[in-house]
Amino acid sequence: MIEIEQLKRTVIQCSLPAALEAMGERWSFMILRATFNGLSHFEQFQTTLGIARNILANRLSRLVEHGILERRDCPEDRRKVEYRLTAKGEALLPTLIALRQWGEKWEANVPNNPVLVDARDGKPIADVVVQAHDGRTLGLGDLRWVDRSDLEADQARCIYTGEPVGAK
Amino acid sequence: MIEIEQLKRTVIQCSLPAALEAMGERWSFMILRATFNGLSHFEQFQTTLGIARNILANRLSRLVEHGILERRDCPEDRRKVEYRLTAKGEALLPTLIALRQWGEKWEANVPNNPVLVDARDGKPIADVVVQAHDGRTLGLGDLRWVDRSDLEADQARCIYTGEPVGAK
Repeated sequence: MIEIEQLKRTVIQCSLPAALEAMGERWSFMILRATFNGLSHFEQFQTTLGIARNILANRLSRLVEHGILERRDCPEDRRKVEYRLTAKGEALLPTLIALRQWGEKWEANVPNNPVLVDARDGKPIADVVVQAHDGRTLGLGDLRWVDRSDLEADQARCIYTGEPVGAK
Repeated sequence: MIEIEQLKRTVIQCSLPAALEAMGERWSFMILRATFNGLSHFEQFQTTLGIARNILANRLSRLVEHGILERRDCPEDRRKVEYRLTAKGEALLPTLIALRQWGEKWEANVPNNPVLVDARDGKPIADVVVQAHDGRTLGLGDLRWVDRSDLEADQARCIYTGEPVGAK
């Protein structure tokens, strides 16, 4: 059992709460999925997702505020606006695909359709996994949490057990 | 611009909504993070996350219902219960780490601490990315959405443009 006491040395600065501040809501992920699929107009989102207009407007504003989408005039019709993924939004691709793959394996009763394939060879993409710097796949048991200052001092040890991590 | 009309041929069966049904809420991710870090008791979650007790109880129930956590008697004190990750819960590791890494890069102003390292060599883990079957890293522009029946018939084509995908 973990003793929270042991952790007091480590200043926890995890960016997961900040990430969830931006994305921690079901509709935000669904809108993001729609933009990954090329949708960009309010009416398209509304029709495709069947989301209430006020909720959609609210979620789009939040995604724009967080710099995940950008709002700009539609080049074909300047009275309309479109929402486009920024680089920051595009960087959510691994998260979204990991979540979809998890849902396919563990939640859905049917295989995903459409299938995501690599444009170059037309083959389905691999499962999103956690990897070591050299590409080995890592599970939860292969990970350790290390204080950054210890890591920088080349004295990595687990923040929970105090045991050294990695071969010396 | 995407014409939704083109998509009518494809029966969309995406498991993202099902995944979000289970996980689509900020606290669910935060509780999951805590279990990845080894916490297992109601009081530990409550103290560490600063979450209201009724919300915590509700979210724990939902995670148990979805088979992400399992509830069992504590071996040391049978009056207490503990919440443990199931295999299904552990399979959310890539999603959670991808989201944390995204937050570190794009949302937080400080680097993550503690640092996640590989137990074997003590080096920080790699960024979670989308990969082809042979390990090439893929971005959004490298992906195509293909109807499963076309893929199985070896006639993969993009569901949006109708263009063939992959070399023949």
